[in-house]
Amino acid sequence: MISDKMVALGANHSVIRDLFEYGNQRAEIVGRENVYDFSLGNPSVPAPVEVELSIKKILNEKSPVEIHGYTSASGSIETRNAIADDLNKRFDTSYSASELYITCGAAASLISVLRACICPEASEIIGIAPFFPEYRCFTEANGGVFRLVSADTENFQIRFEELESLITKNTAAVLINSPNNPAGIVYSKQSIQKLADLLERKSKELGKSIYLISDEPYRELVYDNIEVPFVPNFYRNTIVCYSYSKSLSLPGERIGYVLVPKSTDDGETLYAAVAGAARASGYVCAPSLMQLVIKECVSVRPNLTEYIENRNLLYSSLTKMGYEAVYPQGAFYLFVKSPIGDGNRFSEIAKHYDLLLVPGETFGCKEYLRVSYCVSKEMIRRSLPAFQKALDEAKNL
Amino acid sequence: MISDKMVALGANHSVIRDLFEYGNQRAEIVGRENVYDFSLGNPSVPAPVEVELSIKKILNEKSPVEIHGYTSASGSIETRNAIADDLNKRFDTSYSASELYITCGAAASLISVLRACICPEASEIIGIAPFFPEYRCFTEANGGVFRLVSADTENFQIRFEELESLITKNTAAVLINSPNNPAGIVYSKQSIQKLADLLERKSKELGKSIYLISDEPYRELVYDNIEVPFVPNFYRNTIVCYSYSKSLSLPGERIGYVLVPKSTDDGETLYAAVAGAARASGYVCAPSLMQLVIKECVSVRPNLTEYIENRNLLYSSLTKMGYEAVYPQGAFYLFVKSPIGDGNRFSEIAKHYDLLLVPGETFGCKEYLRVSYCVSKEMIRRSLPAFQKALDEAKNL
Repeated sequence: MISDKMVALGANHSVIRDLFEYGNQRAEIVGRENVYDFSLGNPSVPAPVEVELSIKKILNEKSPVEIHGYTSASGSIETRNAIADDLNKRFDTSYSASELYITCGAAASLISVLRACICPEASEIIGIAPFFPEYRCFTEANGGVFRLVSADTENFQIRFEELESLITKNTAAVLINSPNNPAGIVYSKQSIQKLADLLERKSKELGKSIYLISDEPYRELVYDNIEVPFVPNFYRNTIVCYSYSKSLSLPGERIGYVLVPKSTDDGETLYAAVAGAARASGYVCAPSLMQLVIKECVSVRPNLTEYIENRNLLYSSLTKMGYEAVYPQGAFYLFVKSPIGDGNRFSEIAKHYDLLLVPGETFGCKEYLRVSYCVSKEMIRRSLPAFQKALDEAKNL
Repeated sequence: MISDKMVALGANHSVIRDLFEYGNQRAEIVGRENVYDFSLGNPSVPAPVEVELSIKKILNEKSPVEIHGYTSASGSIETRNAIADDLNKRFDTSYSASELYITCGAAASLISVLRACICPEASEIIGIAPFFPEYRCFTEANGGVFRLVSADTENFQIRFEELESLITKNTAAVLINSPNNPAGIVYSKQSIQKLADLLERKSKELGKSIYLISDEPYRELVYDNIEVPFVPNFYRNTIVCYSYSKSLSLPGERIGYVLVPKSTDDGETLYAAVAGAARASGYVCAPSLMQLVIKECVSVRPNLTEYIENRNLLYSSLTKMGYEAVYPQGAFYLFVKSPIGDGNRFSEIAKHYDLLLVPGETFGCKEYLRVSYCVSKEMIRRSLPAFQKALDEAKNL
């Protein structure tokens, strides 16, 4: 008498997690330095020094009851004000604290928004491949149906015709992720504008509000002065899910937010639903000390030097060998085309050389593999012969 | 097209929260010092000094990537080992890390266990009045049906006949909370033994496992050397939900655990279901810095002096005036009988004197009111004339 659904979710680890565990086992046998683990998206750049300084400042200036007490469920008003101010300064908006809900990180943000949007009259969430695989699990575990637009492997933007064909009366929301995990691309202004136009048109046609959920944990991780369009400025019915996991390298601390602009259709009701969904999922408030840290560090941006150097080294080395890969504009993933067409098979070949690459099938793009370069440059250097050997083996098949 | 269920959960605040907000409004008008707010269960005793010392030690000794990186979903192995050791030392058990799942606090513990247990074949959760009202909301928002055993207002133990009549094939679990919020009592050894015997017998009769969920955030808050029976030692199919919110005064930090003993029926499957339910609810891991703090502070116990003094002052003053109240053995609540029979009505009368008491109806016990004494002793002293005036008004009705 145990929920089968929950057992399945708990017992079936993700492909990524399995690969990571396999790497740990191999490390025991051949030594950590001989395993080239590119599986996880755990930031290798440490949290900016401002984080440590602000924790120490908070401990010295505030009482334990202030630091560790409950905040309101939606988060400390000072922290929400600070986030609103920062957004307003950067994106020429005029948000207030009442449009922000502080969460226990990106997954909590997504769950709260998905549970708020999914209802008997509209239960479908549309994702765009390549996509973060937990989107499917989060949707299906919470009463929704997940639909997927196949990957535009030319430009890694959006297949609009296919997206249009999937939008029905039953669509609750479209869910995008840019900068993208796993492809490392950023949706262009043109793509976002086209997406906004399509959703406006379909909303009118169907006589309903189609929400756009913009999952943006990699917002601040972009290179070469690429601009990440601020989606709510293009499409009014946008809800933003944000996390400080990557931008402040705080993935274990579980801190982020949901922005529900008042200007969305039924904005205040939607905000209440996000709050209700957070409550239904057991979120009493986001970690209180980290809320205070975010207030102090709201305008601190990550140091990208290491990621850029890693990207350049990996991209240039692999393409020189003969690999094809998507040139990353953001995040810390290189999306590499399988030299033999199938990503699963090439992932197995790579394992012969203790090179751990995540097959693209898990992201809805099975001809590719994801290489996380949030690792040490040293490890990338050591791994290059393994990449060469795997390619040679593939060629000789 | 927004989930009505989630809107309702987000828009309808709890009675407790509403009273608290009312108190804030009154404070603006009559001054904070003239409002006697006994509504919230926010610890007034600061976190033990060991917490601050351990945060500083961790910041000085570990790298930011170690401190703030993802832990495994079930929690850091070192922290789980430390918790297991502490339990084993205290309760003569032999748990290991693999039976512990670290969570984002008590609500997260409960949601994960409820979603693990609730399934189409057994969807009913049985609570015992007086009870923490979020139990109903957590159950109903996650596909379950909440059943309630009425309060034993003689002894505030358990009405076993009524409980037995509610147990059916459809029962997923019985949920208890001792030391109890709101009654402040501790279930006696005899009660727990009787409960264990009943559940054993009914499990056999019905040919199924009935889980017992023991929600224990107040475990360490007991007075007068009262013993809190360790429930898994009485009933094999017990799952423990714990939180450090009250014992280490860290309610805002969201840190606790679930103990799923291997010896429970299908124990490993149940553990997987708890993990799956945590994943389905967006819990990636518990806050990482706080996990390290718990490892350091696992055997630190709260300083109870202030709570005991508050209890003594409040209990003796009120009973001297003529109030009837349950003598608190643990937690930080005094459960007071309404002098006019109805708790809601007396709560309104008390408001005439800016005295904020939570009506017992929300806890399933409408002749009572909850008085949270996790407040300053000074405020209790100042409030006593208001208690007298409210009683006088009630007598003259």
